[in-house]
Amino acid sequence: MIKVIARSVIKENHLNEALHIYKLLVSETVKESGCITYELFQELNNPNNLTLIEEWEDMDALQCHTKTPHFITLVGQLSSLEKELPVLIYKKLF
Amino acid sequence: MIKVIARSVIKENHLNEALHIYKLLVSETVKESGCITYELFQELNNPNNLTLIEEWEDMDALQCHTKTPHFITLVGQLSSLEKELPVLIYKKLF
Repeated sequence: MIKVIARSVIKENHLNEALHIYKLLVSETVKESGCITYELFQELNNPNNLTLIEEWEDMDALQCHTKTPHFITLVGQLSSLEKELPVLIYKKLF
Repeated sequence: MIKVIARSVIKENHLNEALHIYKLLVSETVKESGCITYELFQELNNPNNLTLIEEWEDMDALQCHTKTPHFITLVGQLSSLEKELPVLIYKKLF
């Protein structure tokens, strides 16, 4: 199992538009084979800071995800609305 | 429910020592009332980068956690072994 943390900062006045796209991204991604969880969180003190916390069966499943039409289209749409921070990939220790 | 991401960078040559302390911290914290999950992850590309991903019933439970003897003692011990990054607190959107 691998865990992914993908943080982004939504540009001023684009939060609602971004959330609409994220909602589609989540609803499509959770249907993918190898996706265990894929959830969007909002920072309490900075509502424009969003974070996807993802759990995938393995690295292959994660790589397949980044080639799906919904990922390519929706992440493409998000790119103009947010500043994306480096995606961090983890394994669970305990 | 609130989600917490607490990242840290362990200093060179102190990983094993830090992991020993984190193991105690996790084993004590999961016994706390209001703790839903409390898990330690290691970044695949940077093994000295550790991240706690925590889930708490509410903010009160999180605040109680920071006042427990095991938190105060063990986080105190970790402070000399790591650089702690800002702790981020989230709510789940979807």
